[in-house]
Amino acid sequence: MNRSGSVEIDRLIQILARLPGLGPRSARRAVLHMLKKRDSLMAPLAAAITDVAEKVHVCATCGNLDTSEPCAICSDHRRNRSIICIVEEVADLWALERAGSFSGLYHVLGGVLSALDGVTPEDLNIASLIERAGSDEVEEVILATNATVDGQTTAHYITERLKDAGVAVTALAHGVPVGGELDYLDDGTLTAAMRARRPF
Amino acid sequence: MNRSGSVEIDRLIQILARLPGLGPRSARRAVLHMLKKRDSLMAPLAAAITDVAEKVHVCATCGNLDTSEPCAICSDHRRNRSIICIVEEVADLWALERAGSFSGLYHVLGGVLSALDGVTPEDLNIASLIERAGSDEVEEVILATNATVDGQTTAHYITERLKDAGVAVTALAHGVPVGGELDYLDDGTLTAAMRARRPF
Repeated sequence: MNRSGSVEIDRLIQILARLPGLGPRSARRAVLHMLKKRDSLMAPLAAAITDVAEKVHVCATCGNLDTSEPCAICSDHRRNRSIICIVEEVADLWALERAGSFSGLYHVLGGVLSALDGVTPEDLNIASLIERAGSDEVEEVILATNATVDGQTTAHYITERLKDAGVAVTALAHGVPVGGELDYLDDGTLTAAMRARRPF
Repeated sequence: MNRSGSVEIDRLIQILARLPGLGPRSARRAVLHMLKKRDSLMAPLAAAITDVAEKVHVCATCGNLDTSEPCAICSDHRRNRSIICIVEEVADLWALERAGSFSGLYHVLGGVLSALDGVTPEDLNIASLIERAGSDEVEEVILATNATVDGQTTAHYITERLKDAGVAVTALAHGVPVGGELDYLDDGTLTAAMRARRPF
């Protein structure tokens, strides 16, 4: 049914509602907001979307998204090229970049192994990782997959595959999140934090 | 700081984060989702935004948003032209249309009277409403402003102004929860409230 009375508005609502975090209701609110700020919001948004769609592509080396090839991180020679941090998705790469505590290179797997979803090693960027890790330049590989069952399964699989690559394989520490309250943490995290306790 | 490594992506995230219901985090997720469904999502979205920005405008009669002038509702001669339903915003008009229990015309005020925010009758589409209500065609005006203090104040003000217009003034029944807003109500409640409207 035509809800807003305008085919154009309905189409826009429908497309927006497909974005994660937006449903039909918030898509409607977003469209009304756009129409109120038509000049300052709609034209720039459409232009920005077209820009990204045309210019951004996947870095052939690490799987990051950028306009340049190789991406800005891979081509930044101030970064430490002897360490590769392995993440599941580009969102994880962005999160680590925001934290600003890592200055090496990345490798985006593009997902995790999952028997349930039928994701095999061939579906992920693992072959290219093994190749990169085999280079003389690389000394350490950091496993930064999520602390989920699939994420850890994938980490174990990669460790196995990297056995003969001659690189150190490390993983992000488990523990109490900074600013976190013990009372709100799950038992698994608390147990991991307790086991990994260190001199204070 | 350039967070994603790409100026284009950052600009898109920044614009998306200005939409209601989206923050920086969900804007980032939305952009990554878009890039995964580049062909099926990005081009259609940019086109739909441009389409709406260029074609949709405010109906000079009722204040609705549509591509045609007068809007599809005002120009639909199957609708009951003797009843005008007064709403605060276009979102409320959409909500009532979704409920499907009203087949008259609308009048969008564009807000509510508010001493606090300095909104006076001149800031709202009240003069055009009085004019419309004065036409011989119109027999009833339904007050469907929100059940908030400002909404009810506005309703009382309009009732006062319509005293000499020779129209019946009714209001949505108190099936509407006090303090609730139309756009957030379920269709059943809206329908019940529409059916039980009473002299104001």
